[in-house]
Amino acid sequence: MTAFGWTHLAQDCAARRGRLTTAHGTVETPAFMPVGTAATVKAMRPGDVAATGAEMILANTYHLMLRPGAERVARLGGLHQFMGWSGPILTDSGGYQVMSLADLRKLDERGVVFKSHIDGSAHELTPERAVEIQDLLDADVTMQLDECPPAGWPHDKVADSMRLSLRWAERCQAAFRARPGYGLFGIVQGSTYDDLRRESARALAALDLPGYAVGGLAVGEGQAEMFRVLEATNPELPDGKPRYLMGVGRPDDIVGAVMRGIDMFDCVLPTRSGRTGQAFTARGPVNLRNARHREDPRPLDPDCGCPTCRGHSRAYLHHLVRSEEMLGPMLLTQHNVHYYQALMAGLRGAIAAGELAGHAEALAARWAEGDLAPIDAGNTGHATA
Amino acid sequence: MTAFGWTHLAQDCAARRGRLTTAHGTVETPAFMPVGTAATVKAMRPGDVAATGAEMILANTYHLMLRPGAERVARLGGLHQFMGWSGPILTDSGGYQVMSLADLRKLDERGVVFKSHIDGSAHELTPERAVEIQDLLDADVTMQLDECPPAGWPHDKVADSMRLSLRWAERCQAAFRARPGYGLFGIVQGSTYDDLRRESARALAALDLPGYAVGGLAVGEGQAEMFRVLEATNPELPDGKPRYLMGVGRPDDIVGAVMRGIDMFDCVLPTRSGRTGQAFTARGPVNLRNARHREDPRPLDPDCGCPTCRGHSRAYLHHLVRSEEMLGPMLLTQHNVHYYQALMAGLRGAIAAGELAGHAEALAARWAEGDLAPIDAGNTGHATA
Repeated sequence: MTAFGWTHLAQDCAARRGRLTTAHGTVETPAFMPVGTAATVKAMRPGDVAATGAEMILANTYHLMLRPGAERVARLGGLHQFMGWSGPILTDSGGYQVMSLADLRKLDERGVVFKSHIDGSAHELTPERAVEIQDLLDADVTMQLDECPPAGWPHDKVADSMRLSLRWAERCQAAFRARPGYGLFGIVQGSTYDDLRRESARALAALDLPGYAVGGLAVGEGQAEMFRVLEATNPELPDGKPRYLMGVGRPDDIVGAVMRGIDMFDCVLPTRSGRTGQAFTARGPVNLRNARHREDPRPLDPDCGCPTCRGHSRAYLHHLVRSEEMLGPMLLTQHNVHYYQALMAGLRGAIAAGELAGHAEALAARWAEGDLAPIDAGNTGHATA
Repeated sequence: MTAFGWTHLAQDCAARRGRLTTAHGTVETPAFMPVGTAATVKAMRPGDVAATGAEMILANTYHLMLRPGAERVARLGGLHQFMGWSGPILTDSGGYQVMSLADLRKLDERGVVFKSHIDGSAHELTPERAVEIQDLLDADVTMQLDECPPAGWPHDKVADSMRLSLRWAERCQAAFRARPGYGLFGIVQGSTYDDLRRESARALAALDLPGYAVGGLAVGEGQAEMFRVLEATNPELPDGKPRYLMGVGRPDDIVGAVMRGIDMFDCVLPTRSGRTGQAFTARGPVNLRNARHREDPRPLDPDCGCPTCRGHSRAYLHHLVRSEEMLGPMLLTQHNVHYYQALMAGLRGAIAAGELAGHAEALAARWAEGDLAPIDAGNTGHATA
């Protein structure tokens, strides 16, 4: 049986190169987990996700508990079998989505009571039930139930909320069914208050959990504040455990967080952007809806080796996006997830080589170059291949 | 250089087994062409289309002339390069869509004038322009411009319309730029009037075109009428040329038409059905929205070897369809197109073996069996793998 754990392979300043071992395989870190909210990474087949280099995905407890239901997924063999993804899966606790999507009725010491955004049915999520649901889903990484306060809450409210999340962490730990290859992560809260972040991190570290997440960031506080919080938090977390920054982020957010000691990420940005015609490239973001692409035979990102960039022109992608053809989101999502995975592979290589700072500077310089110059500005010229 | 043409390989009663040779490759017939209206077979990547066994696809002149425009496609290297499909492509003439989708302004001897359904811009489609557009698109098979009368028109109106289509066929033939591997098909019209169908077929046969289509069917006349028209029409068409039944159809329509001597088909049914949760299986159609599938771990079609049936359960497909996840249409479209291609491969094998009648009976008997018995009728039982 595989023991759950994270192996520290290399260090470059605060950045760490490591390997997470789970019941469903290993994950090289720093790692980005594509988001498969409702048991599907939107617009991608499971094999296409794996082909990008992604080793681990995230799924959302809130969505899955409502539809198709955790017990049903368990009867169907667990989430891996249900969705055809054989690699590791991390599930969130459902708490964040309850507060952002559901009709929240009550949050107290016991947990949260809410109504489904799908059919209005009533549900309760306690620390114990959150752990049970994730067990039924067969998540390799279970997240504790926590409260995620919005940016701007006052210190005393955040302190109360953070301490509630700490008590929920203890209840999750007590409820968690220990088994080889499966791990429970605690979540550091405390908004942008360094003292509260440190208190949260120290208390969670004392629980000796298999991993730690930093939650409650990327909620509007800005990148500089986020980085400052990471610098205050990470030294309080044990060296030998993985650190996961929840819901982050843009490529430059990820690079900065890796440089501050974060090992794992998830974000809907690459997949959601792919569905609105937005692409990430070595030269920064590109909007495929823009008319400048309509007769451009070049690949979206000449530096990219993904199937979209190897097989299709900007002109074709532009046409698909404008025509609202499903293939547009399919191809752009594939590219974006591939871009994120290539970004992480580059960061891992740079850490191992002890060259992360220079690598990060080179990435930023290329992003700043901006997109390729248009070749069809007047819509009169002949496109050249 | 490849000469365009159809080779007659085997015969079983009226059914023909053959091979179409085009500039972009060969097509084993009887063949079904998936529809790639706007330069994409909806919800499928080009490689996924090819993986179903499809050798030739159809694209729509009307849509492509409006967006991205035929001249633009030509500047981008033609439709094959634009959409990433290296195999043969047949384009329709645009006439049918003008009459069904556009705001038609005028149809007369010269051609049709209409307004785009996308932006209201004015366009004219004449026989000469229809041929020119298809040349710009680089279609392996160009279809003549024709008028497709709705079911129920009186004999004299259909006769006038059919003879107009004949005069347009001659103008298309005069305008068609002959080159190796490319062919122009005439279209037999005449609604359900056998005398008019025969007149149309004879006149077109006299033009000695590279291929012939039967148009104006599957417009509400019913399967029996359609089959009767084919029986009246096909004997008038030359043996050595391919015969294409436009816009047909359901699996049983295709089997019946093959038995009456048709070689090529196209229809949006497999792709459109895939986007609404409908699937074609060896045991007939299945609606994945139905709650009977919600805990069914079996493949959609146990007889099918497509990636959807090999990799996913009915329960998962049901979940995707109910959740309106893009992966639902993606997986169901893949299955449906695969089903149609497997159907055609089976028909080809049966003709070659001289066993088509028995094969058709066996297909119909299995369709009539209906879907697998549900295994979760009460929603209380445990699913069994």
